Amino acid sequence: MGEAARQTADERWVYAFGGGTADGDATMRNLLGGKGANLAEMAKLGLPVPPGFTLSTSVCTAYYELEREYPSTLAAQVEEALADLEAKTGKGFGDAENPLLVSVRSGARASMPGMMDTVLNLGLNSTSVKGLAAKAGERFAYDSYRRFIQMYSNVVLGLGHDTFEYILEDYKERQDYELDTEMTAEDWKAIIVQYQDAIQKERNEPFPEDPKDQLWGAISAVFGSWMNDRAILYRKLNDIPQDWGTAVTVQAMVFGNMGETSATGVAFTRDPSNGDKTFYGEYLINAQGEDVVAGIRTPAPISRARADSLGSDDAPLEEAMPEVYAELTAVADKLEAHYRDMQDLEFTVEDGRLYMLQTRNGKRTAGAALKIAVDMASEGVLEPKEAVLRLEPGQLDQLLHPTIADDAVRDVVVRGLPASPGAAVGKVVFDSDKAAAMAERGEDVILVRVETSPEDIHGMHAARAIVTARGGMTSHAAVVARGMGRPCVCGATGLQIDTAAGVFRSAGREVREGDVITVDGAAGEVLLGSVKMIQPDLSGDFGTLMGWADEARTLKVRCNAETPVDVQTARDFGAEGIGLCRTEHMFFDADRIPTVRAMILSEDEAGRRDALTKLLPMQRSDFEEIFRIMGGLPCTIRLLDPPLHEFLPHSKDDIAEVAEVSGLDAEMLTRRVGELQESNPMLGHRGCRLGITYPEIYEMQARAIFEAALNVTKETGETPEPEVMIPLVGTRAELAILKDVVDGAAKAVFSEVGETIDYLVGTMIELPRACLQAGDIAQSAAFFSFGTNDLTQTTLGISRDDAGRFLKTYEDKGIYEKDPFVTVDRDGVGELVRLAAERGRSTRPGIKLGICGEHGGDPASVEFCHESGLDYVSCSPYRVPIARLAAAHAALKST
Amino acid sequence: MGEAARQTADERWVYAFGGGTADGDATMRNLLGGKGANLAEMAKLGLPVPPGFTLSTSVCTAYYELEREYPSTLAAQVEEALADLEAKTGKGFGDAENPLLVSVRSGARASMPGMMDTVLNLGLNSTSVKGLAAKAGERFAYDSYRRFIQMYSNVVLGLGHDTFEYILEDYKERQDYELDTEMTAEDWKAIIVQYQDAIQKERNEPFPEDPKDQLWGAISAVFGSWMNDRAILYRKLNDIPQDWGTAVTVQAMVFGNMGETSATGVAFTRDPSNGDKTFYGEYLINAQGEDVVAGIRTPAPISRARADSLGSDDAPLEEAMPEVYAELTAVADKLEAHYRDMQDLEFTVEDGRLYMLQTRNGKRTAGAALKIAVDMASEGVLEPKEAVLRLEPGQLDQLLHPTIADDAVRDVVVRGLPASPGAAVGKVVFDSDKAAAMAERGEDVILVRVETSPEDIHGMHAARAIVTARGGMTSHAAVVARGMGRPCVCGATGLQIDTAAGVFRSAGREVREGDVITVDGAAGEVLLGSVKMIQPDLSGDFGTLMGWADEARTLKVRCNAETPVDVQTARDFGAEGIGLCRTEHMFFDADRIPTVRAMILSEDEAGRRDALTKLLPMQRSDFEEIFRIMGGLPCTIRLLDPPLHEFLPHSKDDIAEVAEVSGLDAEMLTRRVGELQESNPMLGHRGCRLGITYPEIYEMQARAIFEAALNVTKETGETPEPEVMIPLVGTRAELAILKDVVDGAAKAVFSEVGETIDYLVGTMIELPRACLQAGDIAQSAAFFSFGTNDLTQTTLGISRDDAGRFLKTYEDKGIYEKDPFVTVDRDGVGELVRLAAERGRSTRPGIKLGICGEHGGDPASVEFCHESGLDYVSCSPYRVPIARLAAAHAALKST
Repeated sequence: MGEAARQTADERWVYAFGGGTADGDATMRNLLGGKGANLAEMAKLGLPVPPGFTLSTSVCTAYYELEREYPSTLAAQVEEALADLEAKTGKGFGDAENPLLVSVRSGARASMPGMMDTVLNLGLNSTSVKGLAAKAGERFAYDSYRRFIQMYSNVVLGLGHDTFEYILEDYKERQDYELDTEMTAEDWKAIIVQYQDAIQKERNEPFPEDPKDQLWGAISAVFGSWMNDRAILYRKLNDIPQDWGTAVTVQAMVFGNMGETSATGVAFTRDPSNGDKTFYGEYLINAQGEDVVAGIRTPAPISRARADSLGSDDAPLEEAMPEVYAELTAVADKLEAHYRDMQDLEFTVEDGRLYMLQTRNGKRTAGAALKIAVDMASEGVLEPKEAVLRLEPGQLDQLLHPTIADDAVRDVVVRGLPASPGAAVGKVVFDSDKAAAMAERGEDVILVRVETSPEDIHGMHAARAIVTARGGMTSHAAVVARGMGRPCVCGATGLQIDTAAGVFRSAGREVREGDVITVDGAAGEVLLGSVKMIQPDLSGDFGTLMGWADEARTLKVRCNAETPVDVQTARDFGAEGIGLCRTEHMFFDADRIPTVRAMILSEDEAGRRDALTKLLPMQRSDFEEIFRIMGGLPCTIRLLDPPLHEFLPHSKDDIAEVAEVSGLDAEMLTRRVGELQESNPMLGHRGCRLGITYPEIYEMQARAIFEAALNVTKETGETPEPEVMIPLVGTRAELAILKDVVDGAAKAVFSEVGETIDYLVGTMIELPRACLQAGDIAQSAAFFSFGTNDLTQTTLGISRDDAGRFLKTYEDKGIYEKDPFVTVDRDGVGELVRLAAERGRSTRPGIKLGICGEHGGDPASVEFCHESGLDYVSCSPYRVPIARLAAAHAALKST
Repeated sequence: MGEAARQTADERWVYAFGGGTADGDATMRNLLGGKGANLAEMAKLGLPVPPGFTLSTSVCTAYYELEREYPSTLAAQVEEALADLEAKTGKGFGDAENPLLVSVRSGARASMPGMMDTVLNLGLNSTSVKGLAAKAGERFAYDSYRRFIQMYSNVVLGLGHDTFEYILEDYKERQDYELDTEMTAEDWKAIIVQYQDAIQKERNEPFPEDPKDQLWGAISAVFGSWMNDRAILYRKLNDIPQDWGTAVTVQAMVFGNMGETSATGVAFTRDPSNGDKTFYGEYLINAQGEDVVAGIRTPAPISRARADSLGSDDAPLEEAMPEVYAELTAVADKLEAHYRDMQDLEFTVEDGRLYMLQTRNGKRTAGAALKIAVDMASEGVLEPKEAVLRLEPGQLDQLLHPTIADDAVRDVVVRGLPASPGAAVGKVVFDSDKAAAMAERGEDVILVRVETSPEDIHGMHAARAIVTARGGMTSHAAVVARGMGRPCVCGATGLQIDTAAGVFRSAGREVREGDVITVDGAAGEVLLGSVKMIQPDLSGDFGTLMGWADEARTLKVRCNAETPVDVQTARDFGAEGIGLCRTEHMFFDADRIPTVRAMILSEDEAGRRDALTKLLPMQRSDFEEIFRIMGGLPCTIRLLDPPLHEFLPHSKDDIAEVAEVSGLDAEMLTRRVGELQESNPMLGHRGCRLGITYPEIYEMQARAIFEAALNVTKETGETPEPEVMIPLVGTRAELAILKDVVDGAAKAVFSEVGETIDYLVGTMIELPRACLQAGDIAQSAAFFSFGTNDLTQTTLGISRDDAGRFLKTYEDKGIYEKDPFVTVDRDGVGELVRLAAERGRSTRPGIKLGICGEHGGDPASVEFCHESGLDYVSCSPYRVPIARLAAAHAALKST
């Protein structure tokens, strides 16, 4: 039996709020969930919150530890809270005259929109419905009652929608009705009888009459939904631990659907799409909150300004209910100031009276997050350091990717709401499973749906962008797409989707499944074909925030790059040096590969040296270009690493072609290719093993580096800082032997030219043995660069190229929490890195330590590098800003 | 400047011996070398040793640290020792009447026969030769002088033999002589003039006259020979460290070649070939010691008994010089008793007087080592524990391999001396380079030579056996072959080798290079063709000694085996359980592979389950057989490990064949083979990863194990102890998930049968991550078995299959001292093993720890396992006795 279950005797499980006071507050998010904590906080702030109480996340944990039983002391606490709630509202649970109706909702520590179940209007039964009828009218009361039966049956009793839909459609047909609005109170009463008969038939017991039975059923359903498949998948995609659990909040109902003086809506204190400081939101007159979120009716803008900018004809709340609007903006200001962050609010107006149902830090696009953070710092609300922490490094990716060029030819096929910014190109797909399958094959797809639901999460994740025909800016599609950083156009009402025929039509045009379209999420437009993109602007707010980040961080950020374009991009993105220049990439150039092959096919050293003499000026000019771009910044250049067979043709046809072009004998070529073939090339004749067997290759490369550095020094006056890196070292002897080769080349070049420069010789640490022997190896190494790609492959014994067959199953079964090739495996690879850093420093205290695997651009891994005391991370050019921001986060969090 | 060089001021470099006393003794072997220490010890024992002095191994070390200069205080110490030697012998260095002549020889800590240089008769010059002539006759003196000039010129001055051979042959031709014996004193004088002219012409300076110049030249040459290529290779083959250095012993010459009352010989206190307690040796009348060792003349047996057993017509020493023989046997007895080990003696008889030149522990065959150790223990000379330490575990290999069957048809092509026992079959090769090349291609070769020299070492190492036409039981070929454990027939005088034609002839028959012959080293016979062999006898002395070893050791020894033959062999060899039963080997059986393939080619679980149901009874019967043989001993059974593509055909032709035989669609087969192909199969979808993705495979295997165990229990009354092993685990979760599968199968079987047995579930630790996470993994593992093959591959990042391309270069450059796939790499893999053992025990104190890589049969690795506190080693059946003995050695050495 677990901790929570043993504490039942004295533990508090239930926390009340409302009436200007609360048992909890915003700091108790882990215990009360985001929703419960914020309702308590709002109640304490004196805001108009319908009263209620929250069953804490500890109940959820205990519930699962006790195998879906409740702690023994819970029932009494709920009874007490219910009595208190009746007192606060002046209503009675199940009362025939003034009935208390409640909502039962989930609320986890982290928001999981739409993932878990909710029950509304709970407390209605054949008695209390009369009380509601007396207060709000018969038609409303019985409509509510049948909605409750339907929802409860679905969520708690596990009955499908179809039964109820069928009864209703059948009834309407027989009455010759077209719309639900034609249904009278008497009609609803008749429907309720049929619904209850259906339930009795299906379950062999009646629909629960006792409101307390209803309540416990709903509570259990919400706790149960924590473990449904959608929720589990969402947690996995969003790194939310299973054991956090959810809270359940029971709250007095207020009705936005009690006629034209009632409404419901959501609002953001700033624009979550671009961060502008404008009050932003949507509402629906005479509706329940679920109607907005579900995207079934397209809501109206909340403000006049917003209505104008969207060209909406609907009356904004500002004009439809000016007093409510004034109160709402005041509440919004108060909440943003209180939480010091942009808020996402849910409200209901019941017969002209405003109720706040929820507030939370609003989800936002990366662009909005950036602008809000910088604005709030300018407004003096946040310190620059706090502003830096407001932007998740992973979000930056969105800001660094292309948008549609201004001068692009835009063949707009349909317009909708600009739900999530960015632009993407891909093939149209109408089905989430298909989208996922095509994406797995490496195809770019755009998911086009009437609307999305939690069942579509995997398809949305797989898609480059999402388009929906229905739903607003806060619809499921919009919220999820923004969270995932996918461009999204919502509510494109001109869209007619014919899934069966595999086409969508708009304004008389037809787009077939598989056709290429471009989605402009910022403009809310869908364009035909693949449209020209431009690079994002990295000045302005971006520059400001990154400046603050750079001040905060202690880790340096370098780049993995070797082509002039990549090196320049990385420098523009703020790289402070090259951490990994892979010289082999230069060998694949069409001009060079024949000479490289001649070198490999030589049977002796003399032949290899001939070919290397031809390669020398090419390599030298490569390095000159790099040194020119990087100025005096350090450049780590890795000597040749891959097995030589990578440079040779493999298939029969390729060999024949190469033989013809090069004039080489095809038979000899085939034989040599065969000789060089390896069972496990990853663990084969590569890295420094090439340098040991063919030192003349490394000698040529070292010579090219030093000649280039001296040439560029003379040319520009700026002296490059070459750091020559020996790969795949497992023993000090390997490094010592090859350091001699490099030092020998340096000595020769310096004496020929009559000038010298400073340089370092170090090694890539990418084998477990190298980590263990780091103390010894450091005696010959001026620096270590952790090659965590290969170190992960060897430490875990997993070939990255082959892992696809099982790594997904591994993630599904929770064997590796995260893909170890994306985020450093702290327990295995991480321990080796820390140990190597420690041992390396013990014999050479000033040794320079960095990481150059792809982990260098992963925020969680950057945090690990900071904690492990490395000097720098190195990553691909587009990840450089992410690494800079992640390094700042790591530094700020650790102080 | 090193330690030795700095201590010149007070260090003693030179140690005298002779005249019943000595500065050193046998305990000073490291300082004085084996030869110097034993000469000192013999002198102290009062044995007839020609006096002399030894320059210690510290001089060698200092000499190399000072870049081939001597410590400054050495010269004075040599002068003093020389004066002392003159006093002891009553002779003068360079004296015209009574000249002192000396030998200058190397002497390392470990014997390196023939590897380093020797100079004899040093001190002869134009003056002293007259003194020698006066005492021993003119012809003898001038023959000695010309021999000295020849040897010194060769060893010290670096001149080739050819110059001198040419002069001598030319001279003899002009005189019309056929044999050297026809040369008179005057002839030798004339030759000496021509030799000296040739030296003057070649070197532009005269042959040194001053004996002291001669002495220093010789000393430097001997120290220099420590670093010659032959010596370096020998040290590498025999694991002798470079920095041990050699000593140099300068000793007064005695002459075995002063006529018919003089002789020289070597003797062993017991038979080094079979260990019999018989005085054993060879000698030559009127010869120098080098004549025996070089194998140029075939010597006579020393005793009558030996002469009879060899059918020799030559007079044995026992009869030719009965008094000398009596003295020699007395000395031999005294020395063996003194050293408590079989001695290898060198002696010279000068004009009827016996001199002992050397004693050392004699090299012996494994069989002899075994018999001598057991005999000496029976004689009360040794404790059983000491006897155990007298047999090197690596030597045992010779005792465990086949010999020629008694009833084999023996087509003897030639007979020679039984120089090294054991039998082997292979193709005839006449050249050492060719032998090495063919062996590298995996061919068994027999090296056939007129005689061998140190230049042949690599060819001898590569050969399965060695045959020579010339040389005795102590010739180079014989000594080296015994050391290497290669069968050898020496002095097969009937053999005529025609290297140019690529044939050897004997008694009118012709054997061509490449023809297959069988060598019977114990009988001294060469047989045509491949002859029937039998298994060695493992009772008698072997059983006795192994019994003592088993008492001494604490490590258990298990076997890696799965076929009934191997399992039975291993049990016969004393295996105490199975440490690794590789279930995949059972899948390759021709009867089963179609079903295995059907399982692999299934597209879904149902298809796989169908095939597995067919495999179940086959696997069950495999395990039943194993359990029957192993009785109640523990059996570790590893569940399926290799990637599935290993079971499928790969080439186009193979696929077509399999398709035809199996009725499967070739196209489907090709596609599936392609899908399953991997870039790095070693790091791919294998081991427990198969179990995670296809649990039904492991479930079937577990079921087969438990059903078999219950069946055998019922049948034999002995309950097997199955230990189910999950391979390639990197995280505890993998193990926990698969342990559930195994436990589930056990539960199901036990409940079906109504009986239970005890079993363990554990894991193979073969990934660096598993070592690091051992504490966590141990919580789900009842045992760890270290798979050091794969652990070496991953820790060092070296694919064993591909390492051939560079590992030799690595060994040559000293990067890895030993092949890490043969002997555990202590610094890398070893640290991980120790760390895993420690962490595993910290969370599960009683966890069973073993090793099942091929290192389990390597003595040095067994020692490591003992030191690391493992419970057992497991190795291939033929290595089981070696591991038992190595474990005993480790235990005895550590107490």
